Amino acid sequence: MKARVHVMLKNGVLDPQGEAVRHALGALGFDGVEGVRQGKVIELDLADGTSEAQVKDMCEKLLANTVIESYSVEMI
Amino acid sequence: MKARVHVMLKNGVLDPQGEAVRHALGALGFDGVEGVRQGKVIELDLADGTSEAQVKDMCEKLLANTVIESYSVEMI
Repeated sequence: MKARVHVMLKNGVLDPQGEAVRHALGALGFDGVEGVRQGKVIELDLADGTSEAQVKDMCEKLLANTVIESYSVEMI
Repeated sequence: MKARVHVMLKNGVLDPQGEAVRHALGALGFDGVEGVRQGKVIELDLADGTSEAQVKDMCEKLLANTVIESYSVEMI
């Protein structure tokens, strides 16, 4: 089984990487890009029987810095 | 309107970042993590009327390195 975890900076936390992408898109001539936020996606191959709660535990302990990042878990 | 872009290393391309995460999860006592791939997720705030084709163009030109990365676009 697989799980997909999205880790994004929380709203209000400055995202310089996203800002750089927004600026670069403008410089390339793409108009109408009003904002960009960049985050991480982590795809986990898990042994059968691993629960969503265990994946959330992994997020809390390692995958996300919960002070500035939020995460969401999707079992697929 | 918004678009979400996922950028992942193609299969067969070594992913040292994902390997490091897999190893760290094992060291923390999470058994049964058989593989980890880490990628980027980019959320774009777009002006109304921006088409999916334009977002794909952004991916080809800036957001993904199509030699080693694949991308998928989701309009939300």
